[in-house]
Amino acid sequence: MPELRKDPVSGRWVIIATERARRPGNFIDPQHDAEPETEKCPFCDNKDRPIHVVKKPMGGWYVKVIENGNPIVQTETAFDRRGQGLYYVLNGHGVHEVIIETPDHTANMADLSAAQIERVFKTYVLRFNELEKDPHLQCVLAYKNYGQAAGSRRIAHARSQMLATSVNPIRVEEKLKSAKKYYDYHERCLYCDLIQQELAEKKRIVVENEQFLAITPFAPRFPFEIWVLPRKHHARFYKGVLGEERALAEILKEVLLRLKIGLDDPAYNYVIQTAPFARGERWDRWRTIEEDYHWHLEIMPRLTRAAGFEKGTGFYICAIPPEDAAAYLREVRVS
Amino acid sequence: MPELRKDPVSGRWVIIATERARRPGNFIDPQHDAEPETEKCPFCDNKDRPIHVVKKPMGGWYVKVIENGNPIVQTETAFDRRGQGLYYVLNGHGVHEVIIETPDHTANMADLSAAQIERVFKTYVLRFNELEKDPHLQCVLAYKNYGQAAGSRRIAHARSQMLATSVNPIRVEEKLKSAKKYYDYHERCLYCDLIQQELAEKKRIVVENEQFLAITPFAPRFPFEIWVLPRKHHARFYKGVLGEERALAEILKEVLLRLKIGLDDPAYNYVIQTAPFARGERWDRWRTIEEDYHWHLEIMPRLTRAAGFEKGTGFYICAIPPEDAAAYLREVRVS
Repeated sequence: MPELRKDPVSGRWVIIATERARRPGNFIDPQHDAEPETEKCPFCDNKDRPIHVVKKPMGGWYVKVIENGNPIVQTETAFDRRGQGLYYVLNGHGVHEVIIETPDHTANMADLSAAQIERVFKTYVLRFNELEKDPHLQCVLAYKNYGQAAGSRRIAHARSQMLATSVNPIRVEEKLKSAKKYYDYHERCLYCDLIQQELAEKKRIVVENEQFLAITPFAPRFPFEIWVLPRKHHARFYKGVLGEERALAEILKEVLLRLKIGLDDPAYNYVIQTAPFARGERWDRWRTIEEDYHWHLEIMPRLTRAAGFEKGTGFYICAIPPEDAAAYLREVRVS
Repeated sequence: MPELRKDPVSGRWVIIATERARRPGNFIDPQHDAEPETEKCPFCDNKDRPIHVVKKPMGGWYVKVIENGNPIVQTETAFDRRGQGLYYVLNGHGVHEVIIETPDHTANMADLSAAQIERVFKTYVLRFNELEKDPHLQCVLAYKNYGQAAGSRRIAHARSQMLATSVNPIRVEEKLKSAKKYYDYHERCLYCDLIQQELAEKKRIVVENEQFLAITPFAPRFPFEIWVLPRKHHARFYKGVLGEERALAEILKEVLLRLKIGLDDPAYNYVIQTAPFARGERWDRWRTIEEDYHWHLEIMPRLTRAAGFEKGTGFYICAIPPEDAAAYLREVRVS
């Protein structure tokens, strides 16, 4: 049974994935996770019982949601929390799904049509709404690992994942806290202010459309890190994006294409940062969250290996200024 | 000139290493950092002007401290902080040194004698005391990258690094805050309590001696993550370790040997977590730090690649329970 454990020293939740556990001796090969290219892609002609299907009008499907075959957390695990001396542990209750983004064996989301990417986002929205119904789920992460360096398996078929758990991961907490602190002082949304400043300074904007802008953040952790920010203030992705799914699909496709062409198809991750579900007793401290938080999408290309001391300190070194990265990506010819 | 920039969204400082910058086009090769094995090790017969040398009585040296040839921060950079709208930026004032741990071409600290490792720790202590004299330096990180997967260069010669900056990295801040919060509530040191619990439960202890214990933490980020904790309470490494350098060397050698033998010489990082220097105006909020913080050494073997979504969420999945990892390492035969 997977467990969620909270480190008392950092306040960080980690997942102890006992279901995935291997014998310690199996850890000696750092390439252990790399699997041989399989002959048949399990996503092209997927036979799993789907959780949700976006059907084509003439038969077949556009987008399919299935259970993750190797889930980090499980629905069957009851919600239960308990202390163990100074430690804190939760059963790994949660949901872990795979969103197959296309029936075709296309690897990179950059190569899907904007209409198809729009369907993917609409599918996320549906799943967010569904997952909200479980009162023990707090935080839903919609994310993508593209390429092996980004943690994906070798099978190259465009897909993303949704992971719903009963806790907030530490980076989500950090962001919520910073946004609240800013709002408490300024009585304005941090992200709305940030968007204003980026629009005025212009030098970190990669591309923009009427609804969104894509910027390289002022203090990135990784070279070519990109944030896609909605101009319209909303704390939550699955409510704020309504009616703007196409515009989001268009700007994301544009950004992913620029990365693909400009940086030779790098591995990347993205994650949608959105306010957690509002849940009774745990919710008081986020009283102003509707005003103070602002959903967005983060893209992290994996161009460099994280060197050593980042792991121990959280102190990242970014070897290219974000202003240069944005200028470079603006110049990439996408057509 | 390198810059320290603070991300307003997470509160995280990052280093924009403009001195190390490459043209964006050079980022297309993820193996770019791998360099060919050089014919001659620059550390064996080092000719750099040393910052400090621990001399052998009959000529030659035991340990040598030199400037990092590719520094992240620089002494020549004046200390200066300024706002840019809602952003915050500091000049990259700081010190970045390399500690050559042996004149012999030995790769892994595990293979040095305890007496030699003791000399390394005594050298760290000397450097901490020296670096404390610069009133603009706040935090000193003493750390090691062993093996290419841990961010080291290909040259295999045991060495560690010290990085002194005018800010606290986010993980140091997190730890300081958690410890303070615990102390404010319990009026006891979190780490002292944690040590008591670990000694009572025993199941996560890897090895111990009179002065230290080495445990796998309850909520690790990585398989086989290990913390070496001093039984004696002290907030600061370079003061608390005095007189116990040999005992620390012995337990660290023991742990590193068990990792080397049990896990086939994995890459690893370690970092000494210690309270920052006490500095006037910034110090008020850490009023109780002498009582609430407790220095320690973290070891992070690099057995698995960080998968995708850890980067975006800080949510780590550890595929082996720390109790199993500790049991496995206890069984490794080191002689």
